[in-house]
Amino acid sequence: MYSQSVQALIDELSRLPGIGPKGAQRLAFHMVKAPAETVADLANAMLEVKAKIRFCDVCGNYAEDDQCLVCANTRRSGDAICIVEEAKDVEAIERTGEYMGRYHVLGGVIDPINNIGPDELNIASLMRRLSSGDTQEVIVATNPNVAGEATAAYLARLIAPLGVTVSRLASGLPVGGDLEYADEITLGRAFAGRRVVA
Amino acid sequence: MYSQSVQALIDELSRLPGIGPKGAQRLAFHMVKAPAETVADLANAMLEVKAKIRFCDVCGNYAEDDQCLVCANTRRSGDAICIVEEAKDVEAIERTGEYMGRYHVLGGVIDPINNIGPDELNIASLMRRLSSGDTQEVIVATNPNVAGEATAAYLARLIAPLGVTVSRLASGLPVGGDLEYADEITLGRAFAGRRVVA
Repeated sequence: MYSQSVQALIDELSRLPGIGPKGAQRLAFHMVKAPAETVADLANAMLEVKAKIRFCDVCGNYAEDDQCLVCANTRRSGDAICIVEEAKDVEAIERTGEYMGRYHVLGGVIDPINNIGPDELNIASLMRRLSSGDTQEVIVATNPNVAGEATAAYLARLIAPLGVTVSRLASGLPVGGDLEYADEITLGRAFAGRRVVA
Repeated sequence: MYSQSVQALIDELSRLPGIGPKGAQRLAFHMVKAPAETVADLANAMLEVKAKIRFCDVCGNYAEDDQCLVCANTRRSGDAICIVEEAKDVEAIERTGEYMGRYHVLGGVIDPINNIGPDELNIASLMRRLSSGDTQEVIVATNPNVAGEATAAYLARLIAPLGVTVSRLASGLPVGGDLEYADEITLGRAFAGRRVVA
């Protein structure tokens, strides 16, 4: 029904996450109408990312060189390593501006159902980094869900014998949130983790 | 904060309609993780659309040749021309399978606020097509909103003197809709356009 090239584009677009058939159609028609340069810029940005982006030799974060921007930054402290599931979590933490240490990207979480055990994650390279003895604290910033908590518990057991402090991000009420709408577990954790302010 | 090529991709993606900064980020990270081929396929589909798609010489629909698939199809009836605002409306009507005539794409609607008058639309070419005398009916399928109705009224006045029947798509309750939730105008039109069934 569509011209062949438009249909091919709709097919490719609808493979993207969060884009259904209607959304793919709308994007495709937007591109048909948009100036050729605009579309070429986007296509080139996509190809350039695939050509340039690799994984950091040290921490497993996305990088354009051997090391990522964090590992290559000599002003970042080596005292702390923050462990995250995915490289995009690094960006989320960087946006807070609260953390000046380094990262280690696991590349997932322990997930027995999908046959992902510790050996499938970047844990060996983490242990090598920790064995150098520079690190004082490891902050395990896996997601606060079942798989993330299990992975955090596993890592804590593994790292504690090295004499390194292992911490976990605070759980509690999200800022701007509403007590009334908080689930019981979150509210319970907010109580358990309450802080003396005066 | 992001690697330069990832940031460039996020910037380009967030220019797409309906894709905000968060969505652009998610798509960009999806592409970073996806196989290079998948991303190249999408990029190439985009470039191919821009290279191939042009406007039909006859009706203004999208085409890969001089004429679009509808105009080039000799089995389509020349008795009726359906006037639509945009080329994507052609696809919407084609999906119904109810119409076997031809189309004419206006390229917009009369919109004095944005300085779009009849001269900015493909109306001259429509009148040339109608002057050949083959057309028995013109179905004005502009959108059922203020601008679409005004454009339809303008076209009806213009075309009626040629002795061609001018019709408009029926307004009424959407199939699967709920009487209770229909707005007054739609429900009013459904009454006005009621059909005898027995």
